[in-house]
Amino acid sequence: MKLLCDRIRKDGKALNESVLKVDSFINHQVDPQLMEALGEDFARHFQDRGITKVFTIESSGIAPAYVTARFMGLPLVILKKQTSRILNGNVYQTKVTSFTKGTTYQLTLDRKYIDPEDKILLIDDFLANGEAATGAATVIRESGAELTAIGILIEKSFQRGRRRLEDAGYEVYSQARISRLDQGLIEFLED
Amino acid sequence: MKLLCDRIRKDGKALNESVLKVDSFINHQVDPQLMEALGEDFARHFQDRGITKVFTIESSGIAPAYVTARFMGLPLVILKKQTSRILNGNVYQTKVTSFTKGTTYQLTLDRKYIDPEDKILLIDDFLANGEAATGAATVIRESGAELTAIGILIEKSFQRGRRRLEDAGYEVYSQARISRLDQGLIEFLED
Repeated sequence: MKLLCDRIRKDGKALNESVLKVDSFINHQVDPQLMEALGEDFARHFQDRGITKVFTIESSGIAPAYVTARFMGLPLVILKKQTSRILNGNVYQTKVTSFTKGTTYQLTLDRKYIDPEDKILLIDDFLANGEAATGAATVIRESGAELTAIGILIEKSFQRGRRRLEDAGYEVYSQARISRLDQGLIEFLED
Repeated sequence: MKLLCDRIRKDGKALNESVLKVDSFINHQVDPQLMEALGEDFARHFQDRGITKVFTIESSGIAPAYVTARFMGLPLVILKKQTSRILNGNVYQTKVTSFTKGTTYQLTLDRKYIDPEDKILLIDDFLANGEAATGAATVIRESGAELTAIGILIEKSFQRGRRRLEDAGYEVYSQARISRLDQGLIEFLED
């Protein structure tokens, strides 16, 4: 998606071979005009799949996932990052380790907010190794619902996330696909 | 604000004297139609204050704060909850302890996303003891900017948050003000 790639070229900061900072328009400061365009693009892309709910993982996917849900006229469900395991049976939970951030959490979904009939669109800001998305797929599968598709703002195509999700049978649509990063260098797959 | 109070009456769950669950429409599952109405109400309420940026604290304030920022045509800045202190000088940081949740974090703002000339509107979902809002006020004050006003979805008026913020000189507008909670009981200040 040209709009996002252009914005990353302009305002993104590649710190090294793996870190791309998009703090000034996506993660820390959020540009609502850009988010509207991204959400509308996701809604258009996934409009004919019979999606019933939009899911995201807290917290930096919330803004684009919210806009997508609003354009699709659907509820948004935010998967929570809990620090510890909840021992009652009211939740679906799976442990996720983020290699990128070096953190571990229990990805948590209240059973009330998913039905076996649901067809879920998962939206997240980054796809790198695919740990978070795979965790989301696990809790969705556990409920009996279908993870119909995954929408990503920025894919690090040189990491294994997309392959891993596609090998597991999931469709992935990424608005910006980055083939290479280095200090001051950002290359896109389309370049 | 009648729309929000009615929705809390219908879908909110009071567990005891202090806990109100609004998981099904604000915190875990998000109703975009409601969020649009809440954000528009904040935008209208604060339209003549010369606000330059909307701030919120991750993560359950992000959706309503995003909508408010979009209606006002302003950037949104998300204050981050870091687990540890960052030792370089690029951030404003203050320690916040949430009595409600029993957690402690470093509320963190990159210096790039605030200027001394900024007039900030802070939006958050809950106001109880005012710990998070007071922390946000601290980092904003440290930057030299002005915290012009605070917009809250749900105020527990029987706790000390509002008084504390007003005593510190801040204007607080809450869309729903709850005077009393008990198991199965929710009373509003207007009742």
